[in-house]
Amino acid sequence: MSKPLNVAMIGYGFMGRAHSNAYHKVNNFFELGHRPVLKVACGRNLDKTKAFAEQWGYESVESDWQKVLARKDVDLVDICTPNNTHAEIATAAAKAGKMILCEKPLAMNAEEGQRMVEAVEKAGVPNMVWYNYRRIPAVTLAKQLIDEGRLGKIFHYRAKFLQDWTISPELPQGGQGLWRLDVAAAGSGVTGDLLAHCIDTALWLNGDLATLTAMTETFIKERKHNLTGKVEKVGIDDAAIFMGRFRNGSLANFESTRYARGHKALYTFEINGEHASIFWDLHDLHRLQYFDHRDQGIVRGWRSVHVTDGDHPYMGHWWVPGLQIGYEHSFVHQVADFLEGVEKGKPAEPTFRDALRTQMVCDAILKSAQDGKWVKVAGA
Amino acid sequence: MSKPLNVAMIGYGFMGRAHSNAYHKVNNFFELGHRPVLKVACGRNLDKTKAFAEQWGYESVESDWQKVLARKDVDLVDICTPNNTHAEIATAAAKAGKMILCEKPLAMNAEEGQRMVEAVEKAGVPNMVWYNYRRIPAVTLAKQLIDEGRLGKIFHYRAKFLQDWTISPELPQGGQGLWRLDVAAAGSGVTGDLLAHCIDTALWLNGDLATLTAMTETFIKERKHNLTGKVEKVGIDDAAIFMGRFRNGSLANFESTRYARGHKALYTFEINGEHASIFWDLHDLHRLQYFDHRDQGIVRGWRSVHVTDGDHPYMGHWWVPGLQIGYEHSFVHQVADFLEGVEKGKPAEPTFRDALRTQMVCDAILKSAQDGKWVKVAGA
Amino acid sequence: MSKPLNVAMIGYGFMGRAHSNAYHKVNNFFELGHRPVLKVACGRNLDKTKAFAEQWGYESVESDWQKVLARKDVDLVDICTPNNTHAEIATAAAKAGKMILCEKPLAMNAEEGQRMVEAVEKAGVPNMVWYNYRRIPAVTLAKQLIDEGRLGKIFHYRAKFLQDWTISPELPQGGQGLWRLDVAAAGSGVTGDLLAHCIDTALWLNGDLATLTAMTETFIKERKHNLTGKVEKVGIDDAAIFMGRFRNGSLANFESTRYARGHKALYTFEINGEHASIFWDLHDLHRLQYFDHRDQGIVRGWRSVHVTDGDHPYMGHWWVPGLQIGYEHSFVHQVADFLEGVEKGKPAEPTFRDALRTQMVCDAILKSAQDGKWVKVAGA
Amino acid sequence: MSKPLNVAMIGYGFMGRAHSNAYHKVNNFFELGHRPVLKVACGRNLDKTKAFAEQWGYESVESDWQKVLARKDVDLVDICTPNNTHAEIATAAAKAGKMILCEKPLAMNAEEGQRMVEAVEKAGVPNMVWYNYRRIPAVTLAKQLIDEGRLGKIFHYRAKFLQDWTISPELPQGGQGLWRLDVAAAGSGVTGDLLAHCIDTALWLNGDLATLTAMTETFIKERKHNLTGKVEKVGIDDAAIFMGRFRNGSLANFESTRYARGHKALYTFEINGEHASIFWDLHDLHRLQYFDHRDQGIVRGWRSVHVTDGDHPYMGHWWVPGLQIGYEHSFVHQVADFLEGVEKGKPAEPTFRDALRTQMVCDAILKSAQDGKWVKVAGA
Repeated sequence: MSKPLNVAMIGYGFMGRAHSNAYHKVNNFFELGHRPVLKVACGRNLDKTKAFAEQWGYESVESDWQKVLARKDVDLVDICTPNNTHAEIATAAAKAGKMILCEKPLAMNAEEGQRMVEAVEKAGVPNMVWYNYRRIPAVTLAKQLIDEGRLGKIFHYRAKFLQDWTISPELPQGGQGLWRLDVAAAGSGVTGDLLAHCIDTALWLNGDLATLTAMTETFIKERKHNLTGKVEKVGIDDAAIFMGRFRNGSLANFESTRYARGHKALYTFEINGEHASIFWDLHDLHRLQYFDHRDQGIVRGWRSVHVTDGDHPYMGHWWVPGLQIGYEHSFVHQVADFLEGVEKGKPAEPTFRDALRTQMVCDAILKSAQDGKWVKVAGA
Repeated sequence: MSKPLNVAMIGYGFMGRAHSNAYHKVNNFFELGHRPVLKVACGRNLDKTKAFAEQWGYESVESDWQKVLARKDVDLVDICTPNNTHAEIATAAAKAGKMILCEKPLAMNAEEGQRMVEAVEKAGVPNMVWYNYRRIPAVTLAKQLIDEGRLGKIFHYRAKFLQDWTISPELPQGGQGLWRLDVAAAGSGVTGDLLAHCIDTALWLNGDLATLTAMTETFIKERKHNLTGKVEKVGIDDAAIFMGRFRNGSLANFESTRYARGHKALYTFEINGEHASIFWDLHDLHRLQYFDHRDQGIVRGWRSVHVTDGDHPYMGHWWVPGLQIGYEHSFVHQVADFLEGVEKGKPAEPTFRDALRTQMVCDAILKSAQDGKWVKVAGA
Repeated sequence: MSKPLNVAMIGYGFMGRAHSNAYHKVNNFFELGHRPVLKVACGRNLDKTKAFAEQWGYESVESDWQKVLARKDVDLVDICTPNNTHAEIATAAAKAGKMILCEKPLAMNAEEGQRMVEAVEKAGVPNMVWYNYRRIPAVTLAKQLIDEGRLGKIFHYRAKFLQDWTISPELPQGGQGLWRLDVAAAGSGVTGDLLAHCIDTALWLNGDLATLTAMTETFIKERKHNLTGKVEKVGIDDAAIFMGRFRNGSLANFESTRYARGHKALYTFEINGEHASIFWDLHDLHRLQYFDHRDQGIVRGWRSVHVTDGDHPYMGHWWVPGLQIGYEHSFVHQVADFLEGVEKGKPAEPTFRDALRTQMVCDAILKSAQDGKWVKVAGA
Repeated sequence: MSKPLNVAMIGYGFMGRAHSNAYHKVNNFFELGHRPVLKVACGRNLDKTKAFAEQWGYESVESDWQKVLARKDVDLVDICTPNNTHAEIATAAAKAGKMILCEKPLAMNAEEGQRMVEAVEKAGVPNMVWYNYRRIPAVTLAKQLIDEGRLGKIFHYRAKFLQDWTISPELPQGGQGLWRLDVAAAGSGVTGDLLAHCIDTALWLNGDLATLTAMTETFIKERKHNLTGKVEKVGIDDAAIFMGRFRNGSLANFESTRYARGHKALYTFEINGEHASIFWDLHDLHRLQYFDHRDQGIVRGWRSVHVTDGDHPYMGHWWVPGLQIGYEHSFVHQVADFLEGVEKGKPAEPTFRDALRTQMVCDAILKSAQDGKWVKVAGA
């Protein structure tokens, strides 16, 4: 019989829903020592928080996250609030001795992230950042293939995260559901929101980035702010491109934008190795494209692997071969791995420390874009 | 606040899991008047039933389905047992005044199905058959496009359901998890298991089939029976093909097999109309291919519609554009529609009566394959 | 130095162009003992024939094919006229001792085809029918893979040839460029025009068809005749479907139509074997999809083979890997193989006798569609 | 009746074949005032030149290109020799008053290119550079769609040219067929060979590049030289990436490599505009992917346009809808356009002057990669 693990959810937006769903489902599909219990939901707007709590079955609500941290019946704090609040909540939660799951990006910048890492490590609390794409089975399979050495020496790593939802100049910035366009709340635009995902995956699959040079662009210079009603300068980056070198000698080419008409959430990566290559695409997340040069020449080609078999990562827990899972399942896998890590005393990745490396790359991107120069990535 | 609706699950196999998951999730994502409560799980093997009940949170277990029907605290009976038990359980459940959700195919044959229809209609109980693929958003979108008249006159309807999991002669027939290969339990092979799905969708999208001619094949003639240990004649059809005419004058070409190497669950359909065509594929269930001849010639082409936007069927309940849902969500949608139907007193399709039409086509297929002649589909 | 081989072209339509181009190019890309010389073009309309001859460099023109056959300076007669003229011209050409290349289908029916076979075999003249798709490199590669035994026992062969150019009821039948819609000139509709291609490939790749049952449809019942100006009954089949059994026990599912909106010339085939499967599509003719179950499970998937390498069939004669050839090259390959066959005294396939087998299947289709019964394919 | 235009071919390698084929075919498919006559082939190795001349029907051979220029019966000189010889031959040919078609890249660098431009403009001779990809119908269609304003304001232009043929360290550099790996003959590696194609297309479709920053890599540092037999430092760039800004404000992301396992000649570009986006891929050169946001939302998706219809650029000259042409046809189109330009006195693009702009971008890339700084593109 699994032990209860009491969860406090801070925030009730898109990620609040995605994580709550994961807590709900995880024990139906995974054999685990612990069972998340939705103890308390916390949000500044109490009516909305109550509605959220009822929808998802949270036992209670709070409007002040500090009260949540003070509760004895809370084991784990899940931070789903805008980026500019992560550091304060996380460091306080660490002091309160809570386990912490924090939405990505970890922090507004590496300096802030560094303090968060120190806080959780000093407190010795289990901690993890929600870079959920690592746990899409096709991506996890990519990791497995690389770790088995199938690709050989890596020459190229290419990643893109393309969207098109901010092309209209009428779209406001800031306010409910739009804080990602407000630099004060988000810290950056596509760099922290989208490229951060690409970077997390890349560091995991291909190791540290050593140096890079970047450019950013803000196509729409002014937008009305949703809350103030004023037309204000847009502070975020609408698009960011960087190229660089990984420590293993491979070349990086990364790009993200919210101005790529026709793409809703097209996160893709491709890795070219001496012997084999891999390509993945979030729009068909259940497939992995794999090319192996060691295949016989006349029948050599990119293989479209439908990652739905029982021996594919995580898939034995779901349905039968051929039947897809979706986006939300990556969160279920992450909770499952976290709980297994708690059980075994072995932290699930990415920890705050892992996520700090991604933050350092983000800082390097923004710095290079500002200065127009190559930069060395801190800590690399 | 939603009202509880007490569910009894008969069977704990693959579909028992799929349905239980749907009952669990539906109220997190849909605003509904009722809330399924997992009251009792029933199975002949009590240990396995208990394990299943614990995994999914059923409040109690039974080993005798007749006891389940006798319980006052059961509102709805969900029949997930092998095909040869559907009729007996369903007719008894109807007499007991329970709502009934029955796995597909409805029955072993149309005669049996006819009795089931009569039983539920006489009892006046809400009833539905789990032809879940209607509620994959891309398929529901296809229905919407057809109903809007976008395709014009229909010329062709083509469907296939291809698998490859029974190619090995070493695979036994019958017994735990393999009753689909045992003609006594399943009634037929791919006809009732796979083609039935294709037919249900086709009748929904394109109306009744009028006439057809069919062929079937059993490639492996003898297999060891898993329970008896004896090598016995294989009674099911491994493959079935039929061609025919719909009442609207369009031509049908349907095929199903478990001997199509490389395909796990490749259910595809294509509809060719005067003005537009539609193609769908279960292996990429989140996409709909759409061709519209009225597009300007030089930029005319098949459109790959990523069916993940808020204005696509059901998708407003899930995540954001670009993020896929999977196979299991079709069951959630079906529960949501059923509960809404209960609320509004308007039955959700396919009812037993709808499913009987599919059963009549299956009977016609098997009859034609045996006689080598064209047959008229009963009731069409 | 290659020897001249004098070609007489009968007809100057679409195929006249395709073949002339092949004669022109073949010696630039293939080392051959013979060199086609465009000696004479023949057509009933002398002005058009002259224009054609000038465009393609034919040395002379004739309006009477019998005069062509009487010419001493003609070695080879290429028959590109409507189907209802093949038999008369070919049997006369055989008597005149000419090599004969005849457009497909061989004849109006098998009886006519039988006489043509007898004529060429009695005369002992090299003969071939222009089923050009065998020589698309990806198709030839499929043949190679099958002959190497990679697929193992074959279970299924599926082929389709879908077009959409006759959907408009305003399209006339008959006359210049439209004789394919006139049953008197064409013999049949899609059966002889499109299915014949699918059948030729199938017999080559998978052996004889033993039995089949077919249906045809004429969606537009009356059309204006282009020459007479009268609205007349349409005699051709707009669509044809058949299913059957090959002699090797595999199941056949074939379909062709000119009413599949969105498809210009979508000839596809798929072969499912015990170990491996193959799929090909004329709309991407330079690719072969290959699935091999013997690949390791976690990286097993359909391989998209870009058939452009030097070790792929015919491709060493063209460009470099990655660079496509197109439709017209299949004719060049066929001429190259024919000329090599002449050199070596070993006839290139398909000969008239090979093409007669396809004709027998076409006859069986039309017969079965008329009678609504299964038929045994003659000669199989 | 078309007038003869006498062609002298300098070089007999891969491009010598591709161009000769184009001269051969052009009048069969296009109505033109001129007809190329293959007058003389010129190469240093006379035996090989003779073999080439015989294969392609050149009337005579020369081993000294200066003799060719002196011939009165030569109207047009086609330069297919290694890059380091272009300038000398072209400037001499200009002085001799010949029309000049020069292989790409125009020159070893912009300074050399500038002199070539001056020479041809001073001489007033028709001139063109063989950036053939502009004339692949799908690419020409892209140009047409952009010129019609369908994309609106452009935000992003992304291009890649990926190959994998130099991954083996055993591959020698220099010598017959391998001069592209020898910096002395080629001037650069992928920058001049592959990126130059991407740049030519980009400048044509999207206007001038203003600024950029680049990086290059040479993965294999030393290779045996094929002619000298000595192991020598590799001077070329194996991979090059650059990002930058076009004058119209859109962002550039370009990459080329010969170390991308799985890609033979994967030239792709994608353009994201305010209203619509375009994607093209050389590996499926007959298709254009087009997304138009103005399509109705529920059926909006990327359209796969099979660019084979009579109203698509150039396609009316070839076969019928659905039937592909290939790589070689781009050269035929270029000759056709050149001859039409000669006829009309309106030069076909890209002229030497157009190609010089591409050369300036290449110079900027190599300069930036060396210095690690952003550079302004000369002339932009």
